Amino acid sequence: MFTLWNKFPQIYKQINRVEKLIDDRLHTNNPNVEELLRALADDQGKQLRPGLFLLFSQLGDQKLHTDEELIKIAASVEILHKATLIHDDIIDDSPLRRGKITIQSKYGKDVAVYAGDLLFTVFFSLLTEAMNGSKYMSYNSQAMYNLLVGELSQMHLRYSQTQTIDDYLKNIQGKTAALFKLACMEGIHFSEPNEKRERLAGDIGLNIGIAFQIYDDILDYTSTTKDLKKPVLEDVAEGVYSSPLLFAFAKAPAEFKPLLDKKQDIKPAEIKEVARLVKKYNGVKDAQELAQHYTDLALEEIDLLGDRRVAHQIKTVAIRLLNRAS
Amino acid sequence: MFTLWNKFPQIYKQINRVEKLIDDRLHTNNPNVEELLRALADDQGKQLRPGLFLLFSQLGDQKLHTDEELIKIAASVEILHKATLIHDDIIDDSPLRRGKITIQSKYGKDVAVYAGDLLFTVFFSLLTEAMNGSKYMSYNSQAMYNLLVGELSQMHLRYSQTQTIDDYLKNIQGKTAALFKLACMEGIHFSEPNEKRERLAGDIGLNIGIAFQIYDDILDYTSTTKDLKKPVLEDVAEGVYSSPLLFAFAKAPAEFKPLLDKKQDIKPAEIKEVARLVKKYNGVKDAQELAQHYTDLALEEIDLLGDRRVAHQIKTVAIRLLNRAS
Repeated sequence: MFTLWNKFPQIYKQINRVEKLIDDRLHTNNPNVEELLRALADDQGKQLRPGLFLLFSQLGDQKLHTDEELIKIAASVEILHKATLIHDDIIDDSPLRRGKITIQSKYGKDVAVYAGDLLFTVFFSLLTEAMNGSKYMSYNSQAMYNLLVGELSQMHLRYSQTQTIDDYLKNIQGKTAALFKLACMEGIHFSEPNEKRERLAGDIGLNIGIAFQIYDDILDYTSTTKDLKKPVLEDVAEGVYSSPLLFAFAKAPAEFKPLLDKKQDIKPAEIKEVARLVKKYNGVKDAQELAQHYTDLALEEIDLLGDRRVAHQIKTVAIRLLNRAS
Repeated sequence: MFTLWNKFPQIYKQINRVEKLIDDRLHTNNPNVEELLRALADDQGKQLRPGLFLLFSQLGDQKLHTDEELIKIAASVEILHKATLIHDDIIDDSPLRRGKITIQSKYGKDVAVYAGDLLFTVFFSLLTEAMNGSKYMSYNSQAMYNLLVGELSQMHLRYSQTQTIDDYLKNIQGKTAALFKLACMEGIHFSEPNEKRERLAGDIGLNIGIAFQIYDDILDYTSTTKDLKKPVLEDVAEGVYSSPLLFAFAKAPAEFKPLLDKKQDIKPAEIKEVARLVKKYNGVKDAQELAQHYTDLALEEIDLLGDRRVAHQIKTVAIRLLNRAS
């Protein structure tokens, strides 16, 4: 769990319930798949999206929905996130995530395909239990669609030297920020439905999500393997060119080109050279400014939420996300 | 499309609308994924599950739901089926399906993972449009869950020489028959809700689905590649031991054991030897009897449906499924 949640006792308690619910749901009476489900349940992440959902749900009168329903919706957001992570790890061939061996690496790609699918069904059933009939059913399917189109588009642009920061921003809006947006919108909607405030919450979530992903991509250039608990500079080898590289590349394409032309055959020493060029041309600094820009947008909007105590907590999260080590 | 549908003009027209709807839904404003979506749309199958749904929907007064809603539900069943096929082809490493190159073979496993996921989202959005608030939302998520547990369990039992016909039946109930069951239940429910009749429809669908899958597995032993439009005897090499093999194996384990012990290293000549033994010990014949048994169960239940014209059409489908070449 994200250490920040310790500071918000109510959220902390609720996130513990979310984790327990996820653990409970990852069971089946089929002994053949039980081990896999246990592995999925044990791999709980930062719970950022449920945490944001729960924070936003404090803005209204939570009695409109039962606590149990809110916990289910919070869990549904995390489960959808987990499902896409598992499938992303297949595509990325990632051996590690958060310091743990990935499902695809431990059980094989085949199992990982079905494991992700199984999580999609858990996502779907949590929603049917907690919000059947709500317009947020279709918002959920739309967010899931955006997530996938973002991932597909990112995959399509692998090794592309003509992609722009705009392409990048469009893809991370889909693959990451769409889910942050949904979490924040749902948070307000299921505690105090109000279309205008839901749109505001959605914008805040979108901006936090974009900043979060930009910073995530920065960590690939600035962290050590020990901090990040996964191989660093992995993105370059896989042809995923994120904002630090895109900014630097734009300043000195001729220097990057011979290295990036090697595509998947790029050697570790050459990847290090790419990293050196990214640093030389201030790619990380430019990306940090971009992340800060989206965080600033979020902070301004959070002020419009009204409730000072909750707004302060949401701000704390938004700022803290740009000052994390992993 | 299954040639039989030509004989039922109303169903035929509706299935054309289902195919058109699927085609319409597989578009995005993202040019990067458009080619893939076109390939998915072009690969329309037999439309068995939508056909059964539509047949069962004729049993009630369709005016309870709009035609458009019924077409969407019919399409949702097919889309869920397509999604699981694409992921199955990844697991099976299948080069061909219905004579066409599979998505994983043409675009790579990575694209195939996301393509299947994308279809799950289309499935989900069709349901939210056509039946948001209905208890069938949770029946759909349950069917999707059963499908996946069946596939996972089948995968877990690969190359297992201790699996029984009961294990096999349990897996095909999940991976195939659950969706037939759902299609038939939904058909009655959305034209004339009646729990008792929905249960009867579900039983009929389950039995038709079990018989269909047993026969599908038989075709792996009896067809030519040309008829089946995919490699024959593929299952044995992949360690998927279906009913013809399981029946024969039980009669002469000592003859099969040295061949099956080779697992994935089994050679084409050895696979042919397995097929010869399956024939020698009447494995195909026993499996045909098992398929016939489930079809007979379905036929008896169909008589209880009442509407003679529709019942006759459903019977025709059930019988025809055991007399197909692919």
